Amino acid sequence: MATQSPKPPINKGLEGLVVADTQLSEVDGEHGRLIYHGYEIADLAQNATFEDVAYLLWMGQLPTASELQDLNKRMAANRLLPDGVLDILKSLPTSTVPMDVLRTGASALGAVKKIDGKATLEDAIALTAAFPTIVAAFQRMREGKAPIAPRADLSHAANYLYMLTGSAPSEQKTRALDTYLVLTADHGLNASTFTARVIASTEADMCSSVVGAIGALKGPLHGGAPQLVLDMLKAIGTAENAETWIRNALNRHEKLMGFGHRVYKTEDPRARVLRKLADQLTEVEFFKLASTVEDTALRLLHELKPERRIYTNVEFWSAAVMHAVGLPDDLFTPTFGCSRVAGWTAHVLEQQSDNRLIRPASEYVGPWNLKVAPIGQRT
Amino acid sequence: MATQSPKPPINKGLEGLVVADTQLSEVDGEHGRLIYHGYEIADLAQNATFEDVAYLLWMGQLPTASELQDLNKRMAANRLLPDGVLDILKSLPTSTVPMDVLRTGASALGAVKKIDGKATLEDAIALTAAFPTIVAAFQRMREGKAPIAPRADLSHAANYLYMLTGSAPSEQKTRALDTYLVLTADHGLNASTFTARVIASTEADMCSSVVGAIGALKGPLHGGAPQLVLDMLKAIGTAENAETWIRNALNRHEKLMGFGHRVYKTEDPRARVLRKLADQLTEVEFFKLASTVEDTALRLLHELKPERRIYTNVEFWSAAVMHAVGLPDDLFTPTFGCSRVAGWTAHVLEQQSDNRLIRPASEYVGPWNLKVAPIGQRT
Repeated sequence: MATQSPKPPINKGLEGLVVADTQLSEVDGEHGRLIYHGYEIADLAQNATFEDVAYLLWMGQLPTASELQDLNKRMAANRLLPDGVLDILKSLPTSTVPMDVLRTGASALGAVKKIDGKATLEDAIALTAAFPTIVAAFQRMREGKAPIAPRADLSHAANYLYMLTGSAPSEQKTRALDTYLVLTADHGLNASTFTARVIASTEADMCSSVVGAIGALKGPLHGGAPQLVLDMLKAIGTAENAETWIRNALNRHEKLMGFGHRVYKTEDPRARVLRKLADQLTEVEFFKLASTVEDTALRLLHELKPERRIYTNVEFWSAAVMHAVGLPDDLFTPTFGCSRVAGWTAHVLEQQSDNRLIRPASEYVGPWNLKVAPIGQRT
Repeated sequence: MATQSPKPPINKGLEGLVVADTQLSEVDGEHGRLIYHGYEIADLAQNATFEDVAYLLWMGQLPTASELQDLNKRMAANRLLPDGVLDILKSLPTSTVPMDVLRTGASALGAVKKIDGKATLEDAIALTAAFPTIVAAFQRMREGKAPIAPRADLSHAANYLYMLTGSAPSEQKTRALDTYLVLTADHGLNASTFTARVIASTEADMCSSVVGAIGALKGPLHGGAPQLVLDMLKAIGTAENAETWIRNALNRHEKLMGFGHRVYKTEDPRARVLRKLADQLTEVEFFKLASTVEDTALRLLHELKPERRIYTNVEFWSAAVMHAVGLPDDLFTPTFGCSRVAGWTAHVLEQQSDNRLIRPASEYVGPWNLKVAPIGQRT
């Protein structure tokens, strides 16, 4: 049968192609800058909370004190999962991959809360507020413990840690997690955000966009890598082993986790903030290990490829900070989702404010002019 | 606060931009042709089953008799939902939007079956085989009846109708639904298929891609419209009312459902096949209503906009055929999903066979140089 095609398919990455305007964030990889709606990321990390940043992305300005109080109330009111959603999480095996739990739980939340029709701010709040509850409830259940109901008097970050452990976290841990959430809430048109906008462009509801984005974030080429950084640090074990281990890995042409980024050609401004947090938070030995691995990796990568500009990326120090606040390794990516959902929902609102269906074309490179043998005449 | 942006965001639809090569299907809108891997759609509709077409899309050739037998066995073995997934469907309120049920059920299936890592043919079969079971189980439950276990001795289409009703369907209804599934299994890089490929490009698993695609298919600009065709036909009521009703609708600048397509500039080849099926299947009065509405709408649209080439699209006669085989209106789009999942999964396999992360750019059009007021100094 003449089914061989004339040429194999080629996938194009759309790298650098502008497919949407946005007022939400700007990634200036050449100069190592990240801006959310006019504000430098380091300024926000220092002076704003995750709730401030979510409001900024959704509403286009930072909240006043009373606007923030109002948002806090609305977020707190949406933390508790409806019964049906908790039942659904209980039906999943305790061995389920946590990102699959988040994907299924978020989809169930939209189904039960009837998130349907045109996307609204209410939808954005409902999803963003409930993400940590989904992740924490599953974590408790797989530990054989009862889920802990959210507290309305705690901040978004503090309540997440509280629901995981059952005790209110220290100010330092809360601030570290909150800063991580601020730093990673939005990042231009990354693959999950683009997914959310493509889905939103069909006029599907906010939950459908967010559930699709969770799927994209799960991919190792996007959000699925921070736990691999910790695996690497554990494998290296001590600062003294770093040089030998990294040299061997590079000799075997293995990829070092946590270095290099498609957009940043200088230091990622988020990595710098996270490094400082890790220094304050982590055990002395662990920070020594991580910083020695960083220094050694950068030095050896530069030796090997002096023409390339390779820097520490956000995942390296994110992993250290999430580890230090007590998150299990396989909750790193779901926690990234708890942060990025603020950006996804803001992008969905922006897409729907002046929508056009995103529907590119493919080029057909398969065979032509084949004929189906009628069913009776098949071999 | 200087948060006004210099210019509002503009969304670009990527219309006509080639972002991937494919061997799967070719939509030639200018000449009204649709080809799956070398075969004309009308030839496949006449001489192939949904299982044949799924095999063609996944494997790049039509199955031999023994290959088809093997596929049928593998599909049948994957029809039954694991207990956890059925429990999850039972936890959803009976008033849930059916597309939200499909989205949540598919996500749960992937979670429970541990569809993870690199996408495989096994994943494609597992998802495609189980979609009708999810939809039919929910339909039974919202009717207050017990879900019906799938039968391995029936074809994909016949088993779907069997699980909805509890009795094996007529040959004619089975053939009509099977033909609908053949006709709509793939269609170039439509919005849901593009969504699936974007998610797959992060190296996320097959289920994550498919769940995202379900979300996109839910959108009224993509798959969420066929039930609106039936709403329109019911509102018109009789063939005699058609002219007055349509004239009034056009005078009020309302959109007529089931006419016009972004790609086809002549008759959609699928609409022709479906029209003939509807003629054979539907009650005389209903077919008279639908065909009078079609004729009248095309005539009045041409009078109004003689320069535009507007034809009946696939949704118009899809709605009539799905209605005739006994599907409730709000299962039309989920049934479209039962068909298109064959295409989605084939595109995911194709994307991963030579992958590149799909990560376009956005242009930042928001404000610059704002400063955060420290928390103590907020108003």
